[in-house]
Amino acid sequence: MKGFGIIEPMRRVGWIEKEAPVAGPFEAVLEPVALCPCTSDVDTAAENPNITPGRILGHEGVGRIVSVGSEVRDFAPGDLVAVPAVTPVWHNLDIQDGIHQHSGGPLGGRYLSSKWDGMFAEYFKVPDADLNLAKIPESVSLEAAALVGDMVTTGFHGPELAEVEFGDRVAVIGIGPVGLMSVAGCALRGAAEIYCVGHRPVTRALAMEFGAAATVDYAEGPFVEQIMELTGGKPLDKVIIAGGEPTVFNDALALCKYNGIVANLAGHGRTQTLLPMYTNEAINFCAHKKITGGLCPGGRRRLERLMGIVKSGRLQPEKLITHTFHGMDGIEKAYNLMASKSQEIIKPIIYIEQ
Amino acid sequence: MKGFGIIEPMRRVGWIEKEAPVAGPFEAVLEPVALCPCTSDVDTAAENPNITPGRILGHEGVGRIVSVGSEVRDFAPGDLVAVPAVTPVWHNLDIQDGIHQHSGGPLGGRYLSSKWDGMFAEYFKVPDADLNLAKIPESVSLEAAALVGDMVTTGFHGPELAEVEFGDRVAVIGIGPVGLMSVAGCALRGAAEIYCVGHRPVTRALAMEFGAAATVDYAEGPFVEQIMELTGGKPLDKVIIAGGEPTVFNDALALCKYNGIVANLAGHGRTQTLLPMYTNEAINFCAHKKITGGLCPGGRRRLERLMGIVKSGRLQPEKLITHTFHGMDGIEKAYNLMASKSQEIIKPIIYIEQ
Amino acid sequence: MKGFGIIEPMRRVGWIEKEAPVAGPFEAVLEPVALCPCTSDVDTAAENPNITPGRILGHEGVGRIVSVGSEVRDFAPGDLVAVPAVTPVWHNLDIQDGIHQHSGGPLGGRYLSSKWDGMFAEYFKVPDADLNLAKIPESVSLEAAALVGDMVTTGFHGPELAEVEFGDRVAVIGIGPVGLMSVAGCALRGAAEIYCVGHRPVTRALAMEFGAAATVDYAEGPFVEQIMELTGGKPLDKVIIAGGEPTVFNDALALCKYNGIVANLAGHGRTQTLLPMYTNEAINFCAHKKITGGLCPGGRRRLERLMGIVKSGRLQPEKLITHTFHGMDGIEKAYNLMASKSQEIIKPIIYIEQ
Amino acid sequence: MKGFGIIEPMRRVGWIEKEAPVAGPFEAVLEPVALCPCTSDVDTAAENPNITPGRILGHEGVGRIVSVGSEVRDFAPGDLVAVPAVTPVWHNLDIQDGIHQHSGGPLGGRYLSSKWDGMFAEYFKVPDADLNLAKIPESVSLEAAALVGDMVTTGFHGPELAEVEFGDRVAVIGIGPVGLMSVAGCALRGAAEIYCVGHRPVTRALAMEFGAAATVDYAEGPFVEQIMELTGGKPLDKVIIAGGEPTVFNDALALCKYNGIVANLAGHGRTQTLLPMYTNEAINFCAHKKITGGLCPGGRRRLERLMGIVKSGRLQPEKLITHTFHGMDGIEKAYNLMASKSQEIIKPIIYIEQ
Repeated sequence: MKGFGIIEPMRRVGWIEKEAPVAGPFEAVLEPVALCPCTSDVDTAAENPNITPGRILGHEGVGRIVSVGSEVRDFAPGDLVAVPAVTPVWHNLDIQDGIHQHSGGPLGGRYLSSKWDGMFAEYFKVPDADLNLAKIPESVSLEAAALVGDMVTTGFHGPELAEVEFGDRVAVIGIGPVGLMSVAGCALRGAAEIYCVGHRPVTRALAMEFGAAATVDYAEGPFVEQIMELTGGKPLDKVIIAGGEPTVFNDALALCKYNGIVANLAGHGRTQTLLPMYTNEAINFCAHKKITGGLCPGGRRRLERLMGIVKSGRLQPEKLITHTFHGMDGIEKAYNLMASKSQEIIKPIIYIEQ
Repeated sequence: MKGFGIIEPMRRVGWIEKEAPVAGPFEAVLEPVALCPCTSDVDTAAENPNITPGRILGHEGVGRIVSVGSEVRDFAPGDLVAVPAVTPVWHNLDIQDGIHQHSGGPLGGRYLSSKWDGMFAEYFKVPDADLNLAKIPESVSLEAAALVGDMVTTGFHGPELAEVEFGDRVAVIGIGPVGLMSVAGCALRGAAEIYCVGHRPVTRALAMEFGAAATVDYAEGPFVEQIMELTGGKPLDKVIIAGGEPTVFNDALALCKYNGIVANLAGHGRTQTLLPMYTNEAINFCAHKKITGGLCPGGRRRLERLMGIVKSGRLQPEKLITHTFHGMDGIEKAYNLMASKSQEIIKPIIYIEQ
Repeated sequence: MKGFGIIEPMRRVGWIEKEAPVAGPFEAVLEPVALCPCTSDVDTAAENPNITPGRILGHEGVGRIVSVGSEVRDFAPGDLVAVPAVTPVWHNLDIQDGIHQHSGGPLGGRYLSSKWDGMFAEYFKVPDADLNLAKIPESVSLEAAALVGDMVTTGFHGPELAEVEFGDRVAVIGIGPVGLMSVAGCALRGAAEIYCVGHRPVTRALAMEFGAAATVDYAEGPFVEQIMELTGGKPLDKVIIAGGEPTVFNDALALCKYNGIVANLAGHGRTQTLLPMYTNEAINFCAHKKITGGLCPGGRRRLERLMGIVKSGRLQPEKLITHTFHGMDGIEKAYNLMASKSQEIIKPIIYIEQ
Repeated sequence: MKGFGIIEPMRRVGWIEKEAPVAGPFEAVLEPVALCPCTSDVDTAAENPNITPGRILGHEGVGRIVSVGSEVRDFAPGDLVAVPAVTPVWHNLDIQDGIHQHSGGPLGGRYLSSKWDGMFAEYFKVPDADLNLAKIPESVSLEAAALVGDMVTTGFHGPELAEVEFGDRVAVIGIGPVGLMSVAGCALRGAAEIYCVGHRPVTRALAMEFGAAATVDYAEGPFVEQIMELTGGKPLDKVIIAGGEPTVFNDALALCKYNGIVANLAGHGRTQTLLPMYTNEAINFCAHKKITGGLCPGGRRRLERLMGIVKSGRLQPEKLITHTFHGMDGIEKAYNLMASKSQEIIKPIIYIEQ
């Protein structure tokens, strides 16, 4: 089969010819139905020197089951299913510690495009199918189902980690598709005011549509000051980081009230980085401010719960889709669009089945 | 001044002539601007043998400040303010135990119409004004401001106590105005499916508007069975009780999954009552089901936070208002309408200022 | 092989001749090394009409591994291991809902003596060995290791469910071995005052040794009044139920402050029971009192954590052991002693290996 | 009256002659009975350029009430009381946000020696007496009562912020008197293994007495490596920072497992500081590690709860006392001993009343 992935780490991506995967006892093999390239696909290709050459990319989308292993009970060939970005092997002692994302090691729950080949191929394999896949309810669109396993679960993890409560005043720093889903998630958890930090008109407009009170442009000056001007100097209850340089932690702490929470969703590079504490604000860590962050929850129940919200009509992740492609060739086109850092793109989708 | 209240406990209400209240050092005296009679006004009059004769009723609405005590800093005569149903004296050791609602004794945070005279009068007095009143933001309607201090805070306490999370499947038992605000609150905390138990067409229609997935009519058969038929027998994550007989706890436990939460908002009478556990379900209390319940949070910050949500446009409590009255005479008319148990009423409002 | 179990439900127990169990791929077969009969063995035999005739009893003790299935990685024949009373099959979608105790149905995590044969036999089988067994650290005694999987984990779940905090004042109702471990657990979670309700001198003395401030005897009058006399009428922060009739919930609510927690560890029979709310205390469920309860946590990490505490020297569960037996015959003797409701017994142990 | 305090910021301390304080309506004036100088007294004098000249130091000890304001209800002249380091004015809107420590501004709950004069004087004044002071139970020693309001409440806040649970494996970095109380607090919250980082033999010996599993000496090499050698490379569940340079956050993150908590109790200077994230560990903030920290809880209930633990016999803070002085002159001697950084000192006490 052919797949799109890493030819040479940090240098070249392209099409690769491989054997099709075979399902182990608890696994399933699927063919892609709709795919969404992710910024982290581009980053993996461009920045990770340790990625295995020949690794196929892609971890967000919808698939149709082609075959299942002998121990799979709940799925059968032909089933249309949502696939999460985090697909742990759940029979794992680390699960008893409560963090499936890191079972079997750091970020150990990421299989697709990390531990083994991803979805940008004619076929792809999912571990622990019964516990990781979810059938798509009738009233949930293909687009929403494709986005629920990464953009929605990741973005919604922001207000979860930040423990957003009724009436909270929140900042979301970075409003790419993950940050936009954090905005929607904050609105859906009862936040009163949501201030967003972005730059591109297309994302700022969509942030307002998802429930922001205001957006500020980091290119127009220090965004902490811009937000504080909007709030009359009153710090915020919670701050979600969905983008930015590592120093963004300082800005987040500066925006955050005593007893507030800073929740990080963003990766911050692979080399040593500095987290400078704010001038004269050693007090930050005596003032009950909390910093937390984490990879999105995965697995089947999570998908089912999030698609339940979509089904209620209270969430439209489809709004993220700005560009549409068709056929396997569309993978490369969509990938290149993502890599071009186009000002107009939020999220592309590729429909594989005609 | 004149006020509407208890002439004879459990027998007669009517107009009473009294001295106008005078503000103590931390207190404020207000005149009513908009008033909402509450079912608990009617219940207090009809069922409480211990209520002081001459007690003026009313604890929900908006007022204008007439005078303030010497220690009040943040409010001045002329200010238009929302008033919560729970107005504790905050300088109280019980606050350090974390339950302001019960500071100074059971339900000790309720002053208006409980510890002293309520709002159905030409003037009324509020304790600890700086910590209990809240100015009304420009974009918040008078109607919303009148409802925020009781219907909204009480109804929203349901999903708070039930710890509703993204994707939860919830039942709300009882959809009077408090239950309806619980429905709105569950939708606003990210619930996926909300099943409501009611009877009257007017409330069932409004429940759907506030985000219910379905409503069932308890007059058409056991509602547990009706809901289980809708869910295919799958129990719910959370159950909120906003009405019903004491045996409703059984129904709630029967609807609730292992590890789920039953949250009670309803009073359940003043005499000995029984909470029968479900047949053959002694297991309920070995199965990590939780029962909790409580009087709504009060005080100023709570009002400010809830009005912040109204301001965001994500909550329209005004939809509860079904009947409108004008002038002091309207108090009696609205009260009688509430007492008549009219099938058409959800919530009346009386505009006092012309 | 022979085993001790149910000959006729609710009527007769005795020795049974059976085939020895064989380990499935994820399972292990063990021989017992030390066994502790449990009150629930006696109750199962005496009260459960649905128990399968021929079912071997026993779910508390230490074993030595005889053989393991093909997929077991961390254990090998000869290993001496602690065995928990709750041994779920962890590869189960219910785990994603956070309650392993009830995975696969109500109390579905209990295999030994519930879903299949227990430990009172020459050999017994444990599901999901890698995730349920734990090697015994050198400094942990055989007796402690035998008790950690049921008495300790169950008793300690009381202060966990009750969320005992530094300085809490607590009541423990029922001080059999589970209640005594709740006392030890409360002391070890920083409780200030622990009031115990019991009757037998042997358990009351041990409660004091484990950290109780005082014990009261329910045979000498209503225990709520006795405790309230000791506290000067001040209600308690938390109440743990480890025994008593179903009406004990009333007593617990009466002892519990507003905003307090009642945590239940006890089974309450198999027939319809009533939970009468306290006279004139309908307020209980408007006063932020919580009721919760649940089967003990099981699995390997739990055992490792609890044995870690034993290893620290801060917990001596061995103190529960009042009677000692040797050899397979000891099982019947110890069981009969438990069934006799001897005033002197807390916990017997049978050493199988000579 | 005379008091010991700041003559010239960052340069000179000494005796000051002042008017004795007079109690406002909610305040009390006390005379000291037993005093404990604190490292933060020395740091305030040596490092804070903004401290008011003439400010009397001292915020830890026991006093006897001399006079009370007109609104004080629960205390009278002659009462012997414990005094906490954090004594907020509780009638404050910030309390409704849940952080009394910072009511009225950053660290706004600290009055003694911060907002007004401290305890190193013939008389000192406490705000909001009814809500901040606590009578000393008969079985609590003067020494324990003196330490409970700062060393105990601060040290115990470590395991609270770190949410230490049964069986946790913990590190405590820095074992001055606060760190030692964190060790005692971890042991008392059910930790299994407590690893301590210190240097002085006197504190390392006392750490073992309070429940440490082992101590390592930072002077003998990188302590992260030393601890990891002891644990066989297994990271810890929780890490408490009670001392060290700002870079200690890196070490704490390196010691902490995924999903673990780092809780900071230490001040980290007043100038811009850097918090470098660990080499190649940008993953820290994608791995559900949390950083939190905060000033100790104050107020009356906290003191009562902590003295309740002392009364139970499960905590002996007196063990911290290494040096004893008598009379007002002892203040200067004890202060100088603290300032000398003697290797032998943990905590001095001065008995003022003969």
